[in-house]
Amino acid sequence: MNKIVVYGVGLIGGSFARALKAAGAVRHVVGIDRSEASALRALELGIIDEAVVGAQADAAAEAAAIRSADLVVLATPVAQTARILEGLLPHLGAQTIVTDCGSTKADVVAAARAVLGDRIGQFVPGHPIAGRETNGPDAAIADLYIGKKFVVAPLAENAPEAVARVTDAWRTCGAIIHRLTPEEHDKVFASVSHLPHLLAYALVDDIAGKPHADLLFQYAASGFRDFTRIAGSSPEMWRDISLANQAALLSELDAYMAQLTHLRERLAAGDGATLEAVYGNAQRARRRWIEAIEAAEAPPPKDTAE
Amino acid sequence: MNKIVVYGVGLIGGSFARALKAAGAVRHVVGIDRSEASALRALELGIIDEAVVGAQADAAAEAAAIRSADLVVLATPVAQTARILEGLLPHLGAQTIVTDCGSTKADVVAAARAVLGDRIGQFVPGHPIAGRETNGPDAAIADLYIGKKFVVAPLAENAPEAVARVTDAWRTCGAIIHRLTPEEHDKVFASVSHLPHLLAYALVDDIAGKPHADLLFQYAASGFRDFTRIAGSSPEMWRDISLANQAALLSELDAYMAQLTHLRERLAAGDGATLEAVYGNAQRARRRWIEAIEAAEAPPPKDTAE
Repeated sequence: MNKIVVYGVGLIGGSFARALKAAGAVRHVVGIDRSEASALRALELGIIDEAVVGAQADAAAEAAAIRSADLVVLATPVAQTARILEGLLPHLGAQTIVTDCGSTKADVVAAARAVLGDRIGQFVPGHPIAGRETNGPDAAIADLYIGKKFVVAPLAENAPEAVARVTDAWRTCGAIIHRLTPEEHDKVFASVSHLPHLLAYALVDDIAGKPHADLLFQYAASGFRDFTRIAGSSPEMWRDISLANQAALLSELDAYMAQLTHLRERLAAGDGATLEAVYGNAQRARRRWIEAIEAAEAPPPKDTAE
Repeated sequence: MNKIVVYGVGLIGGSFARALKAAGAVRHVVGIDRSEASALRALELGIIDEAVVGAQADAAAEAAAIRSADLVVLATPVAQTARILEGLLPHLGAQTIVTDCGSTKADVVAAARAVLGDRIGQFVPGHPIAGRETNGPDAAIADLYIGKKFVVAPLAENAPEAVARVTDAWRTCGAIIHRLTPEEHDKVFASVSHLPHLLAYALVDDIAGKPHADLLFQYAASGFRDFTRIAGSSPEMWRDISLANQAALLSELDAYMAQLTHLRERLAAGDGATLEAVYGNAQRARRRWIEAIEAAEAPPPKDTAE
């Protein structure tokens, strides 16, 4: 590609840019960020070739960048999707494809449809599965996506060539391409990502609110540290994801609370056989899952002892 | 010490024996295990000097081992406490102190009182905080307890010298000695250990039971792996712990379910401000906790990026 524009030059957008540059797959990368410090840092690190700070003053630079881009990638919080698309639409050439990296898809698609109207075919929804608790341009690395999944959630209006431009770029970054509908995507991630985040946040907040919280935290050990690691993630980002995927998340939360109610009742009844059956089923399912990951990808760094 | 006897030569008991031997703090270690393979493996690895398989045939060897021991350590599932104490009581000399490593204390104390009667002063309840998902003699290492906490939960009947024999041994292993009552202990660990285990098991079982479980697991990533790591633990052990600490665990589970009910209601109402406040409070509390750990102990291996 001749030119790509990346909105948000943190971990996700910055790593995407680094990977394409490392592969020699793009000539010129423009980074647009609402934080001037991030934009300049990304320039300094060589992640991008041109920095635009997403404020009024740089509207002309943003317009010029968009006008001749092959690919525009939104690597920003999902709640900003509509605002960014509104800003770029007037400058969007017919040859440019826009994609995103959002953790939810149905809301992003709705926002894109509302803003882009009959240009919606130029928007190809996507989601690279490679989160970390780190962020900012300094966290960006060229090999973040190697062996990771990229979920493309194409729309009926997307031409095959438009989808291919997006998936080719992610394949160049080392990602394995998966395809889901936006609705499937949101159900899946409500279950294996959004719900666990809510549960971890809830547990830490619950403990932190107890009168003897300091005593409790004093005895929390490595199991607690791993269980609550995702509660170290950005509250703003996860507020947005929770609201953006509200319906699917509520449905998963209800199923989980029904499960807890059942376990509570069995625990109160002293029913060790049922507890052991549930715990054992979980242990076996998790072990099969870890084995499947290890067979499909590089071994994860931390589960070698299991 | 001249001689110690360790029931259970896996990770916990084996590491205790290794650490005392490495420090030159014990002359002779007898390992007793219901698994002949484990007992012989521990002997082969040099973890113990003498192996007794805890079956009828070796009752005489067990009696001889107990008779002249300075310290007897139970590193076995808590549900076996009464049976083991019944077996050793007839041979228990007045000079011997017995301690345990159980994850629950009130039930262990109750079992010990019931079995030992007026010899209860010789039993000093304890709990080293150093679990892992690995087990067996091969997992035992001399430095497992360095910088870790050992909770002693002394009884009114314990002479100070009896408590000191136990805490001195654990201090020699590198542990930091903490003191809680059995009831405090059980409340604390229901909150920061037992409840998280139940929650992790429940989530994996919940997902594994869905018709599209394979699809869901396919998209589970590193956050899910960490969150569910404790669901890789032994179902039998955690069944026993759940039942042994039933009352405290039910109380913590009820508080957590009330928290989830509140969050569900706020999510359904689209109340982003409350979600962000809860998530943010959790993130800050966790960060303070991680910083306190890092200040107090060696840095944990995996949280450096946060």
